[in-house]
Amino acid sequence: MSKLAEFEPIFFPRTHAVIGASNSPTKFGGRFIKTQMTFGYNGTFFPVNRDEPEVFGMKAYPKVTDIPGLVDLATILVPAPAVPQVLAECLQKGVKGAQIITAGFGERDEEGVRLEKEIAAIAAKGIRVVGPNCFGIYCPRGGLTIPPGESLPKDSGPVACISQSGGYGIRIPRQADGLGIRFSKLVSYGNAVDVNECDLLEYFYEDPETKIIIGYIEGVKNGPRFFELLKKVTKVKPVILWKGGLTEGGARAVKSHTASLSGQAQVWDALFKQTGAVNVNGLNELLDATLGFLHLPAIKGRKFCVVGGGGGIGVAAADACERAGISLPVFPPSLQQKLLKIVPAQGASVRNPVDVGSPFPAPPMLKAVLDTVFTDSDVDGVIISEIEMSPVTRGGLPDPIRQEMLGMNQRIPIEARDKFSRPVIMVLPVEGTGTEFTEAEGARRHVVDFYMKQDVPVFLTLERAAVTLSRFITYWRHRDAAHED
Amino acid sequence: MSKLAEFEPIFFPRTHAVIGASNSPTKFGGRFIKTQMTFGYNGTFFPVNRDEPEVFGMKAYPKVTDIPGLVDLATILVPAPAVPQVLAECLQKGVKGAQIITAGFGERDEEGVRLEKEIAAIAAKGIRVVGPNCFGIYCPRGGLTIPPGESLPKDSGPVACISQSGGYGIRIPRQADGLGIRFSKLVSYGNAVDVNECDLLEYFYEDPETKIIIGYIEGVKNGPRFFELLKKVTKVKPVILWKGGLTEGGARAVKSHTASLSGQAQVWDALFKQTGAVNVNGLNELLDATLGFLHLPAIKGRKFCVVGGGGGIGVAAADACERAGISLPVFPPSLQQKLLKIVPAQGASVRNPVDVGSPFPAPPMLKAVLDTVFTDSDVDGVIISEIEMSPVTRGGLPDPIRQEMLGMNQRIPIEARDKFSRPVIMVLPVEGTGTEFTEAEGARRHVVDFYMKQDVPVFLTLERAAVTLSRFITYWRHRDAAHED
Repeated sequence: MSKLAEFEPIFFPRTHAVIGASNSPTKFGGRFIKTQMTFGYNGTFFPVNRDEPEVFGMKAYPKVTDIPGLVDLATILVPAPAVPQVLAECLQKGVKGAQIITAGFGERDEEGVRLEKEIAAIAAKGIRVVGPNCFGIYCPRGGLTIPPGESLPKDSGPVACISQSGGYGIRIPRQADGLGIRFSKLVSYGNAVDVNECDLLEYFYEDPETKIIIGYIEGVKNGPRFFELLKKVTKVKPVILWKGGLTEGGARAVKSHTASLSGQAQVWDALFKQTGAVNVNGLNELLDATLGFLHLPAIKGRKFCVVGGGGGIGVAAADACERAGISLPVFPPSLQQKLLKIVPAQGASVRNPVDVGSPFPAPPMLKAVLDTVFTDSDVDGVIISEIEMSPVTRGGLPDPIRQEMLGMNQRIPIEARDKFSRPVIMVLPVEGTGTEFTEAEGARRHVVDFYMKQDVPVFLTLERAAVTLSRFITYWRHRDAAHED
Repeated sequence: MSKLAEFEPIFFPRTHAVIGASNSPTKFGGRFIKTQMTFGYNGTFFPVNRDEPEVFGMKAYPKVTDIPGLVDLATILVPAPAVPQVLAECLQKGVKGAQIITAGFGERDEEGVRLEKEIAAIAAKGIRVVGPNCFGIYCPRGGLTIPPGESLPKDSGPVACISQSGGYGIRIPRQADGLGIRFSKLVSYGNAVDVNECDLLEYFYEDPETKIIIGYIEGVKNGPRFFELLKKVTKVKPVILWKGGLTEGGARAVKSHTASLSGQAQVWDALFKQTGAVNVNGLNELLDATLGFLHLPAIKGRKFCVVGGGGGIGVAAADACERAGISLPVFPPSLQQKLLKIVPAQGASVRNPVDVGSPFPAPPMLKAVLDTVFTDSDVDGVIISEIEMSPVTRGGLPDPIRQEMLGMNQRIPIEARDKFSRPVIMVLPVEGTGTEFTEAEGARRHVVDFYMKQDVPVFLTLERAAVTLSRFITYWRHRDAAHED
């Protein structure tokens, strides 16, 4: 069976049994079903509860086998010792897939390891199992959400996510939401007793809805299979992975979190290099890299120009780019001469970084700088760093003048990108972190939205932009080389 | 003369001549004096303008020598070629100090280098000169601000800052503002033709108002003097430095920014190691380190406990700490047993990191975890990571319950810190970056404020907390060793 067909009833269930559903909002079984109901589901819920005849107004069944008709997906919330029996009943009922949210298995003790073996044996007889010790599935088109994700976006997008951690399973889509990143499916798969990272990679490889695969993983069940699969998948879709537990302390924490073997850092280094999967560390890096792949065309050269609003920023930009492996070539004297006629005479540098002299450049100046750089140099793209694009700041310009200038300036990077068909990347830092800056921060976020919707990726710092860009280019170069093999 | 006496009229001028002041709000000479007036100054302004008899309602003088009475400080805004003549007149008038904001000197061309020599020669005759090519002085108690800093805080604080860059001269205090960091003095000193980093270090060493010295520097005029001075100063006050231009491209940018020689990365590495100055990269790291020194007592041990709200976070915490050089010792079985009786049985880890199972722990549980860890282990402090402390989020708890829980939880880290006299550090990440999260972000910032006011430093990520802490401990260990020498 193709992975698509196998997982169809799990991601898009027409019927969903929630085993351990409860009427009590303080119990997890109550919160879970309430979260799903609030998120919105087009199919039919079947609450399963030994004692209660009704759950939130829906008829409840003592056992899954008591449910009339077909059950596509079962969510299992009962205590660990009861899980094998309940799963066996799901198999008997012909349920297609189950997600076991319950924790307290291999990550806990030997008895948990034994229970996992029972689960695996039942799964092998014909029911796919996600978990245990996980938060399960978020699939907006299927009406499923991960707890407590009742307010996660209802719209789908091109990003698929696997997360071995439940905590990051919810943190990733929450953080991604405001950045305009939307998901096809996200799976928190915990101890991976049956469905593991490889099954999910295979599914997302086939899934036409998925263009980019990202993930947080702690360990893999089958190293060689994972390695070969990554090599195959990265030729077609970027795979961005944050590997937790690469330090000694981290590996120890992994063992007690998802009962995984973390693996040596050198082995993982080699794996990333050889498969072309993009290696990131931490949530911010994971989402930054996602933004790159969402919004940028394939970039294969490392030569960039930084346009910044002030000299100190130019120095920091040069340092950050060089450390990340992005080259800022010194412009030839002829181009420097042209730029010197455009930028203000005082205190400006035109060698690259190009300093427009102030965070509030006049629109014709900004436009002329971009036009000249794109026309007279072969840079692969331009990074615009720390030039004010937001109308609410604490800067020094009188408001009406600033409003008009900024309105014009905002469109200039997009126009240059379109005119020259070369990418423009923005850096828009948080100006102030205090409470009195909350309004300014709200305005900045609107500007970020504006650019992201135009496929101009925005980063919080030049360092993060440069690191992301460098990884992005490494991916595309590896993919080119892999296709030539 | 002591540095304190020498700089007194510059930082706290009773009279301030602004040479090149203008009535036109579009000219820099107009904006500069307007900025100073808006910021508020208790002394007397003397606008100097060749053509205009009045500037913003104040009598203007054609030349500085036409001003009646003493002039403490002169700000020079006239074009570069006119600067030496104007400075000579200041000397003649007996002005104590001058800040030359004008750019277009050594950073520009050979003629600029020649002009700088003239300036240096005049300065040597008895007037201290800040600049040229700088933004000058921000000294709240002296009523001076850096342009365009008319809305920078009016209250002083224990942090002194030197910034060779004007851009960072304004960005540093703006970003610092919302973090509750307040300055005694901040000096953007540009090309450092007379007053340089060493003079300022000597001043801040003596300055009783200054407890912590931070800075962004691009090059030093006199390496050996700087080295010896840093060794002396760091024994008494922490010095946190961001050195721009440590890469090849960065060094090139430095040359065209402040006409400095950047120096080799290895030399700077050695300097930081041997002097005990704290080495940071970038604005965020600079301010993070400042928060550490502002709010933490001396910490000399590297053993910490991380308390986090969810297992994946524990793995990431362990990785981040170990990479930064912070040790998370595995707790002995006896302590683990005690903690297991406190945290929820399912999915929690108690080895260190300690996982309280959810980002919303019940207050008695959080309190008991901290009490037990501090009582039964010898950790040097606790990092509380990603536990919700803000009442406005998109999490899953019903609001009244959450409000009450959070209100209680907020005080628990402070009470534990006070009870056990060991530091507690908080990590409170931005939950969502989208526009719809602006209110939640405002609420988070209020919580950050609350903790900072209680001397609990707050960081945006665990990585940043761990890196900051590690540098902080390195400083204190170096200082101890230096005092023993």
